Amino acid sequence: MINYASRLLESAVNELSRLPGIGKKTALRLALHLLKKDPTVAEALGNSIIQLRNEIMFCKVCHNLSDAEICEICSSPKRNEKLVCVVEDIRDVMAIENTGQYNGLYHILGGIISPMDGIGPADLNIESLIRRIDHESISEVIMALSTTIEGDTTNFYIYKRLKDRPVKITTIARGISVGDELEYADEITLGRSILNRLPYENTLDA
Amino acid sequence: MINYASRLLESAVNELSRLPGIGKKTALRLALHLLKKDPTVAEALGNSIIQLRNEIMFCKVCHNLSDAEICEICSSPKRNEKLVCVVEDIRDVMAIENTGQYNGLYHILGGIISPMDGIGPADLNIESLIRRIDHESISEVIMALSTTIEGDTTNFYIYKRLKDRPVKITTIARGISVGDELEYADEITLGRSILNRLPYENTLDA
Repeated sequence: MINYASRLLESAVNELSRLPGIGKKTALRLALHLLKKDPTVAEALGNSIIQLRNEIMFCKVCHNLSDAEICEICSSPKRNEKLVCVVEDIRDVMAIENTGQYNGLYHILGGIISPMDGIGPADLNIESLIRRIDHESISEVIMALSTTIEGDTTNFYIYKRLKDRPVKITTIARGISVGDELEYADEITLGRSILNRLPYENTLDA
Repeated sequence: MINYASRLLESAVNELSRLPGIGKKTALRLALHLLKKDPTVAEALGNSIIQLRNEIMFCKVCHNLSDAEICEICSSPKRNEKLVCVVEDIRDVMAIENTGQYNGLYHILGGIISPMDGIGPADLNIESLIRRIDHESISEVIMALSTTIEGDTTNFYIYKRLKDRPVKITTIARGISVGDELEYADEITLGRSILNRLPYENTLDA
């Protein structure tokens, strides 16, 4: 038991140390840092955390984080609304947006089918995906999930639900990462990358 | 530039990443963690940070953090008020309190003399220490600063200011850490620990 000399400090340290990856020592360092700074710094931090949790919304269409009912991507007239990319969570949206290579819409599942963690299809935003396909003019669904057993299971489940609908289902390419050496690649990835080989010209404009 | 999809999220990530040791990626992880939890978690965290900064006080006697004008240690009748331990900051108070071996009072300098960082004696709580010695019934000042050049400089400066006053000045023992092997100890520490050797019986009750 550490004696913090102040219940205010103790409470701030306890709250900070509930965050993932932050222990009591780090929490104390952060709290003492805030005490050294101007009061506006602590106020801005505290208020931004409270506002974030209380005011943020989830887009009614794609379930992305949003400041409005419909997110910026779904409401943008510049995006190609015939394409929907299915991802696990909003970090994947950020990663794909960062590439600058995609201008379609997204659909965030909010997780992945994982019987080990007790997550089934009903826990994910799959029904709303099917509703979108039935009611919007979507021509292609791009599955962009992790290449794990859970990702493959989720891919297959969604594929089975969608396969009788008039929509093309694709997955992002799996292959050797740019910069990787062949001899260190695992055999499944290497095998698939040979089976799914591309015309060389296709890679020239990337 | 990451597209956070939400200005609320972006602002929370920016504020969190101002904390020492927290970059944008960690800040995003923390923000998304808070979004998954109950709103009360974010509210408790945010409010504890704001309260900490706005309501905390510094003890008027020893400059320790406190919820009142005089801290718990200074106002406790159980502490030996003839002893004052001089430390650099409040983390040292916590460390010494944790040992359970000290029941005197403290005096927090709020730093250490460091010409390299532009910190001189006037920037530290040294005058208030001298006032305490002149007005309280203190018989011993224990210097408990780091064993660095800055710590030694500060020790020497305070020693010079106090040496004509009727107060004993001591420093915490320097020597081989418990559990350390002699062959890896540096020669100054080892040399001092021989010069400052103790009667063996003194170590038995520790």
